[in-house]
Amino acid sequence: MISRTRIKFIKSLQNKKVRDEEKLFVIEGDKLVKEFLRSKVSIKMLLGKPEFLDNIQSELSESVDLIERVSYDELQQISSMKTPHNALAVVQMQEHEMNIYDITDRLCVALDCVQDPGNMGTIIRAASWFGINNIVCSMDCVDVYNPKVIQSSMGAILHIKVFYADLKEFFTSLTKYSIHVFGTLLEGDSVYDHKLNSKGIILLGNESKGISDELLPFITDKIMIPKFTNAREGIDSLNVGMAASVVFSEFLRKSGSLNQ
Amino acid sequence: MISRTRIKFIKSLQNKKVRDEEKLFVIEGDKLVKEFLRSKVSIKMLLGKPEFLDNIQSELSESVDLIERVSYDELQQISSMKTPHNALAVVQMQEHEMNIYDITDRLCVALDCVQDPGNMGTIIRAASWFGINNIVCSMDCVDVYNPKVIQSSMGAILHIKVFYADLKEFFTSLTKYSIHVFGTLLEGDSVYDHKLNSKGIILLGNESKGISDELLPFITDKIMIPKFTNAREGIDSLNVGMAASVVFSEFLRKSGSLNQ
Repeated sequence: MISRTRIKFIKSLQNKKVRDEEKLFVIEGDKLVKEFLRSKVSIKMLLGKPEFLDNIQSELSESVDLIERVSYDELQQISSMKTPHNALAVVQMQEHEMNIYDITDRLCVALDCVQDPGNMGTIIRAASWFGINNIVCSMDCVDVYNPKVIQSSMGAILHIKVFYADLKEFFTSLTKYSIHVFGTLLEGDSVYDHKLNSKGIILLGNESKGISDELLPFITDKIMIPKFTNAREGIDSLNVGMAASVVFSEFLRKSGSLNQ
Repeated sequence: MISRTRIKFIKSLQNKKVRDEEKLFVIEGDKLVKEFLRSKVSIKMLLGKPEFLDNIQSELSESVDLIERVSYDELQQISSMKTPHNALAVVQMQEHEMNIYDITDRLCVALDCVQDPGNMGTIIRAASWFGINNIVCSMDCVDVYNPKVIQSSMGAILHIKVFYADLKEFFTSLTKYSIHVFGTLLEGDSVYDHKLNSKGIILLGNESKGISDELLPFITDKIMIPKFTNAREGIDSLNVGMAASVVFSEFLRKSGSLNQ
């Protein structure tokens, strides 16, 4: 039986301040846990129902410090979800160093105040699918280790480097490299027509306010996803996760680095 | 003060069976409520905090049968959300008739067993943005009036006709029209290279199992979203909502009906 102290500790990791201090975060769900086990990250604790743990015996590598067999009731006490899965794990955060070459010589993404965890997770997942490996977030973006972000990114966090920075300072420091900053706005060139490079920064803004005024001067290319003639009656916006998927798709399609 | 019976009735609409019997569903949130008020649908009940209702006085049309001023505590009792918004409404379902011309002479979407409410909502929203106005769902898809679907479709349900049908029978009935059925699969032609028509059915499958075997024979065009060369290490799938956004974008871009 798992101790009260341990339950309390794992639950405390739902709090960003505790996560930052401990450099630990929680992942939940059979698929996610298996994916993390296969990766090289260090897993501090693995909690699972006996059936689940017995089934993955062979995958339990040395990278797991502690394994606990728990009941459904215990999982329910610890889980951040209404209906817990069969397993959860406490994982060590990975420290990344920003490589200036990755930023100036490839495609990368900057997020300005993206606050919905589901949107952030979707963007990370889309970036990973389209081979964009670096994301720079403004300090007021949702925390990448928020349980809902982790859940909706579906393991993509294992393949993507996410940084937090003051975006104004970040863009200022990049001016000497004269790289393209593609701002996705409600008005601009159609993403389907505009020349899209295989290098540069794709800047996406807040869910309702868009890109903040102080960042607008850094945008070199204003792009937008146009509406279609027969959609005049439809909704007035895509959510930022869907917009990101469409924009990333266009960038990669045009830069011709398809796997085909 | 709102009566216990009314609270119980509104809460009972979280249940699909009751929704189907009453032909009513619930929408929540300031933005959504305002959007529905502006539309032509019939609103049976509008519940809001006094401040909210006072602010929208001018928008309260005859289409609202009953208005109740409620407190935060009362909203919390009724809401399906952890943190309720300032208003919710009980809305009459709209009955649509399927127009064969809309199916055979335009782009439409068929969903096979899409079960996650968030995904369904995203697909409806993306369809609306890209001007696709008809969606045919298999009987085992999540209910379009599920509170989470309504929430994530962000009012797109007002612009889209959603039907439920046995997809095998549906496709069988269409064979005489020899229309294209574009199945999105893990293997097929790249959506970026394949000829995409401005007519036909885009078929999307279940989140984990994909398109069911019994529907495969109806597919005339197998398409997929290819991975990019530098993304070999990344995640192994996009979610169906993101995939839908990318696929719809490609269809509309190629069919040249851009609003520009």
